[in-house]
Amino acid sequence: MKVKLLDGNIKEYQKPISIKDIASNLGVSLGKSVVGAYVNKIPVDLDYVVEKDIELELITNKSDDKYDLFINHTSALLTAFAINDIFGAKIAQTFYKKDGEEFAVTFEVEPRIGLDELEKIQNKVNEYLANNDKINIEYVDLETATKILKNNEYQLFLAKKQFAELNYVTIYSLNNLKIVNIQPIITDLKHIKAIRVQQLTGSYWLDDAKNIMLQRVHGMGADSLKELNSKIALIEDRKSRDHRTINKRLNIFGFDNLIGAGLPLWLPNGVIIKDEIKKYLKEKEWEYDYIQVQTPIMGTVDLYKTSGHWDHYREDMFQPFNGGRGSEEQFVLKPMSCPHHVSLYKQEQRSYRDLPLRMAEHALQHRYESSGSLTGLERVRAMELTDSHIFVRPDQVKEEFKNVYKLVQEALKGLKIEIDYVSFSVRDPEDKEKYFQDDEMWNHAEEELENVLKDLKLNYTKMVGEAAFYGPKLDIQIKTAQNHEVTISTIQLDFLLPRKFDATYVDQHQKLQRPIMIHRGLVGTYERLVAIILEQTNGILPLWLSPTQVEIIPIGDDKNFEYADKLRDKFKNEFIRSHIDLRDERLAWKIREAQIHKIPYQLVIGDEETKNNTITYRQYASEEEITMPTSEFITKIMKEIKERQ
Amino acid sequence: MKVKLLDGNIKEYQKPISIKDIASNLGVSLGKSVVGAYVNKIPVDLDYVVEKDIELELITNKSDDKYDLFINHTSALLTAFAINDIFGAKIAQTFYKKDGEEFAVTFEVEPRIGLDELEKIQNKVNEYLANNDKINIEYVDLETATKILKNNEYQLFLAKKQFAELNYVTIYSLNNLKIVNIQPIITDLKHIKAIRVQQLTGSYWLDDAKNIMLQRVHGMGADSLKELNSKIALIEDRKSRDHRTINKRLNIFGFDNLIGAGLPLWLPNGVIIKDEIKKYLKEKEWEYDYIQVQTPIMGTVDLYKTSGHWDHYREDMFQPFNGGRGSEEQFVLKPMSCPHHVSLYKQEQRSYRDLPLRMAEHALQHRYESSGSLTGLERVRAMELTDSHIFVRPDQVKEEFKNVYKLVQEALKGLKIEIDYVSFSVRDPEDKEKYFQDDEMWNHAEEELENVLKDLKLNYTKMVGEAAFYGPKLDIQIKTAQNHEVTISTIQLDFLLPRKFDATYVDQHQKLQRPIMIHRGLVGTYERLVAIILEQTNGILPLWLSPTQVEIIPIGDDKNFEYADKLRDKFKNEFIRSHIDLRDERLAWKIREAQIHKIPYQLVIGDEETKNNTITYRQYASEEEITMPTSEFITKIMKEIKERQ
Repeated sequence: MKVKLLDGNIKEYQKPISIKDIASNLGVSLGKSVVGAYVNKIPVDLDYVVEKDIELELITNKSDDKYDLFINHTSALLTAFAINDIFGAKIAQTFYKKDGEEFAVTFEVEPRIGLDELEKIQNKVNEYLANNDKINIEYVDLETATKILKNNEYQLFLAKKQFAELNYVTIYSLNNLKIVNIQPIITDLKHIKAIRVQQLTGSYWLDDAKNIMLQRVHGMGADSLKELNSKIALIEDRKSRDHRTINKRLNIFGFDNLIGAGLPLWLPNGVIIKDEIKKYLKEKEWEYDYIQVQTPIMGTVDLYKTSGHWDHYREDMFQPFNGGRGSEEQFVLKPMSCPHHVSLYKQEQRSYRDLPLRMAEHALQHRYESSGSLTGLERVRAMELTDSHIFVRPDQVKEEFKNVYKLVQEALKGLKIEIDYVSFSVRDPEDKEKYFQDDEMWNHAEEELENVLKDLKLNYTKMVGEAAFYGPKLDIQIKTAQNHEVTISTIQLDFLLPRKFDATYVDQHQKLQRPIMIHRGLVGTYERLVAIILEQTNGILPLWLSPTQVEIIPIGDDKNFEYADKLRDKFKNEFIRSHIDLRDERLAWKIREAQIHKIPYQLVIGDEETKNNTITYRQYASEEEITMPTSEFITKIMKEIKERQ
Repeated sequence: MKVKLLDGNIKEYQKPISIKDIASNLGVSLGKSVVGAYVNKIPVDLDYVVEKDIELELITNKSDDKYDLFINHTSALLTAFAINDIFGAKIAQTFYKKDGEEFAVTFEVEPRIGLDELEKIQNKVNEYLANNDKINIEYVDLETATKILKNNEYQLFLAKKQFAELNYVTIYSLNNLKIVNIQPIITDLKHIKAIRVQQLTGSYWLDDAKNIMLQRVHGMGADSLKELNSKIALIEDRKSRDHRTINKRLNIFGFDNLIGAGLPLWLPNGVIIKDEIKKYLKEKEWEYDYIQVQTPIMGTVDLYKTSGHWDHYREDMFQPFNGGRGSEEQFVLKPMSCPHHVSLYKQEQRSYRDLPLRMAEHALQHRYESSGSLTGLERVRAMELTDSHIFVRPDQVKEEFKNVYKLVQEALKGLKIEIDYVSFSVRDPEDKEKYFQDDEMWNHAEEELENVLKDLKLNYTKMVGEAAFYGPKLDIQIKTAQNHEVTISTIQLDFLLPRKFDATYVDQHQKLQRPIMIHRGLVGTYERLVAIILEQTNGILPLWLSPTQVEIIPIGDDKNFEYADKLRDKFKNEFIRSHIDLRDERLAWKIREAQIHKIPYQLVIGDEETKNNTITYRQYASEEEITMPTSEFITKIMKEIKERQ
């Protein structure tokens, strides 16, 4: 029985052996610091017994985020035990966030527990930790699991799911409660020093609004109190940077369930930000010779059957609907514009001279997300994608791919968004089902693209088997202020769609040829982009994006208020967005208000300014006051806006 | 029995008398020239017998368009008789256009007739005219009509409809065929001198795609051959000005039935025109202190039940649809944005200081039009409305209404669209069903608005009973190049919606008050607006709207082609839309091409231009060639674009 370690070394064992014993075997200190492992990339706990050849990665209390995951999940399990212990609640599921910072436990109990009962749970968890209670683990078959969990339909459901995936079920127990769980835990509680139980919310079973509403307790765990406190501080900071929190201050968007969950209402400030970004992106597209098009927000069901989206994508679409009453025409909201752009391409017979043909559309699309997954502007059901489809000849693929990458890169730079890394997805040549079969074409395309990446001197991660079914692709990944990894831009080759819709061009020899399509998402959707920008700037928007660019604060005499009015008119003439603070408050208060609302320029208008036709300004977060002639200020600010500083 | 004439005179008759006899009785020449009449505003023919007190308007062969209507309809009927005579076809319906210029006849026959058979119909119609055949008219009850028409379900349907409206059925007959018809005809064929039968198309019975597809013959009739020819010329001219014809040359929009009938695809040229107009209108709105918002393209069915649209408007809406598979959330595409804007209004508690609050949205809306009524961009199912809802206090209504009218007027002027007249629609105080009951409010609002119209010195037509159910309104009417009367802009008061959604503001005394809403359609939808502009300019768009503003035509040397490239780049930097004609054709041909495509500026680039860094331009429809330094030309054209000349 061979165990291949992360460093490439191979250890041989004659009989089944637990992870803990393997670790001790490798070294005494490793035996002490090990908390769990990954066996063939699946996380397991120390009691897991190895019975055949495997690849092994040991997780120690030095393993950073992986250690965090184990701690977090053990904390979740302890909290679940506590909730059952105290209230006799039926535990539904335990969760932890991928970034290893928070956990949650969902459960059902009658009557529902109140906020004031969180303390009881906290005390019980502390008791477990103080007692250094031992969590037991059994690896059982489905039949045994079903017997153990027979009174808990949630746990039964999860047991079946685990068995289907791993062919065994892990049962964790403490006192009388047994919980099934796919995720591993740290059995030795000495590694966990502090757990904080906080927050009580509601949550549908499996995030589906048709299911029962469960209660949900949230928390955090750490290997020291210091670590826990710093985690709490970090999360508080992230929460204050959450675009939904920032939105409360800046009034960017709203929702109304009577209109529909996940369908954003763009408030005036939001429209300004969105329109400014759109203007910027369209200018970039103009520079790169894109043509703008606009297509309907829906299509017939037949259109999506032709394109193949109906088969591949139906679960993510809103349901189809008819035309007028009694009409049989069947429409569906578009989840993507690709077939629409092919239709535009086909509005006339194209020639080889017309290519590359770069169609851009800032296109409204609708996808059906479960109500549980909707998150502010980050996950919505209606979104405007910075979309494009470029039709090229085979000999133009390479050059155009470079062009597109350059555009993406510049656009992100203009928006001060940093690329984290680039992932290059190719097909898995063994997967004959997912990928259409044309080895020559795939090999050629993948090779060409890889050469492009090398030409561009890009660091990229190659992902085998992650290509779309229609061709290889490049994803541009960023990290948001919330530490989420997000694909912001994508460039994909497509050989299939032009074929499905029989799109052609006439070549030099008057023969019909098939173009290749490049799908390009420039900076994703406006919804998510605005969320990202709000979070990364913490709402301190650059001048060109600020809904209010200048706050005018007149003080003293009526004359100064009249002068403020004139200033506002002058700004308006130049499309500078200003606002006069007419409230009956002290100057210091008004300046603080403007700071809270992150207004880039505050003008204080007193007798001197009125008399001399000047202004005195102060920039956001600066104490310095500068006086200059009004016209000079207007020139200065217009320049700054135009340059999008 | 009293007959009140148009001039106010009243004639008394002792017993029933026909229209013809009344006319002869009034004067010998009138007896000769009369062709029909309106009895209580319903058109009748000369054989109609008056039996009770009526108001009478006699139609003579001098009565212009009313005479046209009678002629046209008689021509339609004769054509129907001919089609039945020759092919034994089942006549479905006869039509004429409201402007009295064209008629049509729909019918069913097996086998279907071909284009080459139109001549037979033409000959038969000519024969009727030459013979001066007499059309007979009977006024019968429904039972008799049903017997006469029993083999023709189309005619039976129309007979029932006529009886329901008028309590009698008019049966016209010639030879063996009898046709029911609501519309009056001229029984004396000497008034009709020429009929032209032309064009054969298909058409669904009652314009409904679920019904049988009938055949349709079109034609025109006139009282002289000269008149007929001038009518034909006029209609040919209109057809050449039809925006669908112009579109073939300019590539503004397209359709694709696989995406959906009536859902326009905006081609790159169309997007340019639309975006330029949008930019212009948003600048006007900025000037008038509107705030831009953006709301979802759908809402829940409950939203429209709350607003009342579900009851009043359901027939014009697409059918509702669900969210994801199995989800029960019911959505519907929005046919109007009013409830969405009320929702935005309610996103925060408004104060009297916040009003007027002017929300503008260039909003995508969907309405279900029957497939038969779809006409290019003029009648579509997806449209973008230049919409706005303004929330005001009662004391602001008057001033704001003036403001809105001023904005509308300026916007139309900027687009060179002339107002034909203004119609002011008030309620019918007797109609207790349509209008919500609050006499004081209605009286006050109507009086106030009428004062506004007087202040503005407007000529307006007052329409009693034409107000919306929620308040009085002003419609701004224009005449299109196709001679269609169109409501381009509308300003409506609404007392109801704020009540239905419980929208409020806090007044000076901290009390909640109800705002009034003003619905404003600035220039209708972009779709219809672009159709109107294309038709009125005959496709010769002003510089600022031209998709291509400058056509660059290099001749001779390669150097000149390089110079042309540089010129294009310079234009591009300034967002001037230029195109280089690289085709291998003669100069004269290229200039003609640029003229056909109505490009405002054509630059011919030869050796002199390249050497001196100048350009030589020629404007559309001008022969004059002017040479100037490139930079000077750029300054000139940028100024013209900015000023939207």
